[in-house]
Amino acid sequence: VSSEPSLDVKIADLLNPVGFDGDAPGRLWILDQSLLPGERKILTLDSVEAVHAAIHRLAVRGAPAIGIAGAYGVVVAAQSLPPDLTAAAALPRLEEMARRLAAARPTAVNLAWAIDEVMARVRARASENPGLTALGLAREALVKARELDENNKLRCERIGRFGAELLKSGDVVYTHCNAGPLATAGIGTALGVLAVAARQGKRLSAFAAETRPLLQGARLTSYELRELGIPVRLVTDGMAAHVFANFSVSAVLVGADRIAANGDTANKIGTHSLAVVAQHYGVPLYVAAPLSTFDLSIPDGKGIPIEERVPEEITEFAGRRVAPHGVGVFNPAFDVTPAPLIRGIITEAGIASPPSRETIRALFTKPS
Amino acid sequence: VSSEPSLDVKIADLLNPVGFDGDAPGRLWILDQSLLPGERKILTLDSVEAVHAAIHRLAVRGAPAIGIAGAYGVVVAAQSLPPDLTAAAALPRLEEMARRLAAARPTAVNLAWAIDEVMARVRARASENPGLTALGLAREALVKARELDENNKLRCERIGRFGAELLKSGDVVYTHCNAGPLATAGIGTALGVLAVAARQGKRLSAFAAETRPLLQGARLTSYELRELGIPVRLVTDGMAAHVFANFSVSAVLVGADRIAANGDTANKIGTHSLAVVAQHYGVPLYVAAPLSTFDLSIPDGKGIPIEERVPEEITEFAGRRVAPHGVGVFNPAFDVTPAPLIRGIITEAGIASPPSRETIRALFTKPS
Repeated sequence: VSSEPSLDVKIADLLNPVGFDGDAPGRLWILDQSLLPGERKILTLDSVEAVHAAIHRLAVRGAPAIGIAGAYGVVVAAQSLPPDLTAAAALPRLEEMARRLAAARPTAVNLAWAIDEVMARVRARASENPGLTALGLAREALVKARELDENNKLRCERIGRFGAELLKSGDVVYTHCNAGPLATAGIGTALGVLAVAARQGKRLSAFAAETRPLLQGARLTSYELRELGIPVRLVTDGMAAHVFANFSVSAVLVGADRIAANGDTANKIGTHSLAVVAQHYGVPLYVAAPLSTFDLSIPDGKGIPIEERVPEEITEFAGRRVAPHGVGVFNPAFDVTPAPLIRGIITEAGIASPPSRETIRALFTKPS
Repeated sequence: VSSEPSLDVKIADLLNPVGFDGDAPGRLWILDQSLLPGERKILTLDSVEAVHAAIHRLAVRGAPAIGIAGAYGVVVAAQSLPPDLTAAAALPRLEEMARRLAAARPTAVNLAWAIDEVMARVRARASENPGLTALGLAREALVKARELDENNKLRCERIGRFGAELLKSGDVVYTHCNAGPLATAGIGTALGVLAVAARQGKRLSAFAAETRPLLQGARLTSYELRELGIPVRLVTDGMAAHVFANFSVSAVLVGADRIAANGDTANKIGTHSLAVVAQHYGVPLYVAAPLSTFDLSIPDGKGIPIEERVPEEITEFAGRRVAPHGVGVFNPAFDVTPAPLIRGIITEAGIASPPSRETIRALFTKPS
């Protein structure tokens, strides 16, 4: 249907989480997702500290999106130096700021990966051209950051096309957290699969788990699915077994924050429980993520660092206390779903199914 | 240790969810649990409508506690009639009010059971003594309601004693929703097991799932465990698999709202997912509930009606919208855990383990 690609464009515009206006010096902006769906506020981030804080407090979130924010963050870092500083003097200061930025969140590997990609180009250009200034480094960083941004859009499209082959008209998909346009530079990963399948004319419906504690499913995914025109029923995280036992669910689709070499997948807390329940009910679970989400240096999930966040995310809501004072809290932001619970990992280079060292390695040897 | 029984008394007083002051005409009060832990407010319920509303909006909740509230509610109903009305004239009106009250929540069988018990006594006395007045019926109802109240206290103690045999010092227990003093007339069912084990000198710790959407775990269970002196870590409902994979959890303990003849158990939404995850990790799940929770007229879980509640429980929090308008919601208040996922059902007559038609039937043939 001819109108549908434009639907995607509209959604990608409305739900674009991060961008950079102008050349360096220019303006890094993010859509503050912590306020959605109630308020649509664009924040300008003009220092490394501001970018770090926005990533840390989840104003921008979703592994691919924080990668792009981090990449543009390097531009902001370089812009913050005296513009005429020599590359030799600027580079060590930029390296230090880049390291700080990469530590804003520990689990998603895309953040460190994207910053590394930008810094690799900056280092290479600085060594080729010692006459470069700090402003020149910022411009080099921006070229690479824009490339990563554009690249992520294309990779989301490819993930969507590979994944859409798994879906047919009438399918009911269950998803957790948010792996849509707001989490990426493009149409999303897990939700990108739904977007492409819908564009192909397949009628789909979805269950979205609200995703405690920060309710990305309620606030963001249900909003995106509504915009995509895919009927959605919002559920709490504990309802999965009841849903699978009472409805015919075709597949579970989720994103990822870091994938180990064997396919063990760190994603938003709750994914692991969902995967166990899906397996129990014979519902296949697919992870959709770009290759930049893989960390092949880590043999399995035990090596993935899991961010623990403040107890107030659970004990308070909108400033109101919901748990008594003095109660202990355990608040890991992610969990690791063992590869045997995953039917396939959908990437821009194809689907690793079942995920294993071999099927994953094969994705990296194809031209992408 | 001599101080511990008094600890229980203190907690039972502090956390007593419902009571009746004076003879009929007297005062039915409840502790408004919807405001806990922030505010401790006692409500007087002086009409059937007020009792119905308090049960429906979960100001009093927990299957045994709503049974007691319903039993005292019959007293309130009888009190609302002209005191000198003859039993013959009063009884049909009382039956109608009792039916209305029993429908306040459909899933927990204890509510209908307790109201039936009270009405059976009222009917019997009315037929024995046609000279009784409406006030006389209220007094008969009160005698039976007090008996059920006292009885539930004793049954919680027995459940606690049977269950405590399953726990040893050092054990870590995972629980969902609230099955403590606030849910019963006594020390609770699932938490009663912890209370008795703690009284026996066993050192325990707990994970409490917050239990969306209404956060009974965060608001009530963590509060009770803190009062019991049992260290607790509050988690979100989706964390179960991550907890079981990373900590040595000895058992899952939950309450129940209705148990079918084969052991299929309706309990707070989220229990079914938790049971699947517990089985995957080899953690035994026990249900603790009085015999009044069984509905032997229902052969299996398919026959248990599941209450669906308003979408706003999920889309709003403390009056603030967290999901976009126009999004669909599925909000079942309970789910049914199939008996094969349950290691045992702990009752005041012993433990049905594994739960089956035979082991359950055996509980009802013992003197209790």
